[in-house]
Amino acid sequence: MPTIVSIDIGGTQLRAATYTQDQIHPLSVKRIQTKASEPDTFGRLVKLIEDVLPKDQKVDAIGVSLPGPVDPHAGIVMVTPNIKEWRDFPITSKLTEHFGIPSFLDNDANLACLAEWKFGAGRGHHNVLYLTISTGVGGGVIIEDRLLQGQHGLAAELGHSTIQVDGPLCGCGQRGHLESFSSGTGIERYVAEQLAAGRESSLTLNSSGGAKISAHEISKAAKFGDALSIEAYQIAGKYLGIGVANFLHAFDPSVVIFGGGVSQSGALLFDSFNISLKEHLMHPKYLEGLVITRAELKDDSGLLGARALAEMKLSS
Amino acid sequence: MPTIVSIDIGGTQLRAATYTQDQIHPLSVKRIQTKASEPDTFGRLVKLIEDVLPKDQKVDAIGVSLPGPVDPHAGIVMVTPNIKEWRDFPITSKLTEHFGIPSFLDNDANLACLAEWKFGAGRGHHNVLYLTISTGVGGGVIIEDRLLQGQHGLAAELGHSTIQVDGPLCGCGQRGHLESFSSGTGIERYVAEQLAAGRESSLTLNSSGGAKISAHEISKAAKFGDALSIEAYQIAGKYLGIGVANFLHAFDPSVVIFGGGVSQSGALLFDSFNISLKEHLMHPKYLEGLVITRAELKDDSGLLGARALAEMKLSS
Repeated sequence: MPTIVSIDIGGTQLRAATYTQDQIHPLSVKRIQTKASEPDTFGRLVKLIEDVLPKDQKVDAIGVSLPGPVDPHAGIVMVTPNIKEWRDFPITSKLTEHFGIPSFLDNDANLACLAEWKFGAGRGHHNVLYLTISTGVGGGVIIEDRLLQGQHGLAAELGHSTIQVDGPLCGCGQRGHLESFSSGTGIERYVAEQLAAGRESSLTLNSSGGAKISAHEISKAAKFGDALSIEAYQIAGKYLGIGVANFLHAFDPSVVIFGGGVSQSGALLFDSFNISLKEHLMHPKYLEGLVITRAELKDDSGLLGARALAEMKLSS
Repeated sequence: MPTIVSIDIGGTQLRAATYTQDQIHPLSVKRIQTKASEPDTFGRLVKLIEDVLPKDQKVDAIGVSLPGPVDPHAGIVMVTPNIKEWRDFPITSKLTEHFGIPSFLDNDANLACLAEWKFGAGRGHHNVLYLTISTGVGGGVIIEDRLLQGQHGLAAELGHSTIQVDGPLCGCGQRGHLESFSSGTGIERYVAEQLAAGRESSLTLNSSGGAKISAHEISKAAKFGDALSIEAYQIAGKYLGIGVANFLHAFDPSVVIFGGGVSQSGALLFDSFNISLKEHLMHPKYLEGLVITRAELKDDSGLLGARALAEMKLSS
């Protein structure tokens, strides 16, 4: 097994880790804040990598995971949250130039999928659908043991599937996408709209002192029996079931893995999801042997996914 | 190159052909009616195959294309139009038992996609989206030079993607599928509904002597300027654009190939399709270098797809 430096670039933290052999735990790991007073994020990233480089061992490649649209074939970050100067930024060629080793890149949802398939809830499966449900909805797909990337590296943007023409506004500017219904943002929007329309609830538009009521607060209110909050999650689950039915019709996987904070909501989200999924499938055979489960890797999925990508690319 | 007997089982005709070497034209081809007074369709199929077997050459495999859900991994026809006795029918094992050679099966849309990729409009592409638009909407997908089949062989059922929750009824019994808007049946339904609601048109509910007005008649009326008929195709094109935007987000192909009778409608369908596709993409990069084109193989796509499947399976 090669030795890999993995980078996980998040909106709040940059993390680097070195992996070697078959170990699932890194040799070394370090994190810094994404935002800083100095503008040179790439310089800080280089220093972070130098801090985790093993002293007695050659590193074979660098793998990079980050949110937002990327071009994995060209190794270019198109745009990513909180790092404004990285627009069409050729991160892999810059890393390769600096460190003299191959570097590889993909977005965080694709790499979380790859990580779950190799090290987590998707082990042993050949056809995997991964959905992360948090502020947005991200997707990743493994088909016959290969990561689906697409011609421009923009495949598996599953949150941005239209399931209701002229539905609610999505973060991307389009309407009626799965993300506009089933993400944390979608749940928050629904509750805010209903409250603004005068709906009664234990939550009020001022519950958060004027700030937006978060999906987490809504989930807490639901656990205390608040009917509006329960309904908001049920609706998110219903549309998630419709979206996943579409994805089963498209990809026909043997496992569906849910990651992201909102997917931790248990029965609140998944009771209506399960009913809706069954209702919207064109044939019950899609469910034969299908495993529907939660992601196992939590915070490490970005690092492990970037590692798996680098290992995959080195061996292909 | 191996020698292959290809079978194309359609609702009206059974066709068999023998292909050898690199030839795109068959050595021999024969067709019979699907429906017949005698019930033994399999017996008639065996005789049809015997009629095209070359006298001086060993045949390496049989490939079978047919409409309707199939299990390509197990070689089972789940159900297919006009052959009632083939329900969960293990066609490939029966063919292998009779002829002593390997037999392979997939549905007609998947195999038309495979045929276009290997012999037609998708030559040289590695990531292909194929849509056939006729009575229904069928799909096929090639990812990195491999046919997308899925865990149960039920992948790429792209006509049955929900794009409008609670939309019109689809042939499969669900609502708001792409097929319910953009197929010939969807176009016919729209016109019939509008006429029943009193809408003026050169077509009337009795235009066809009481029979349903066909998509072909609607397309003819549109060419003579009938506003309702033009509108019906424009709406079909608009929803087709939404569906294809979803599929670009999912698969990110380098070519989109349209087959099927309704896809011959030219600007009547594709003007509104092109506008809608651009409007509904989350990023213009999906269109960079993307080829959108018509199928090349016409009637032979089932036979050539079954042949390509058999060649692919023999060499894997």
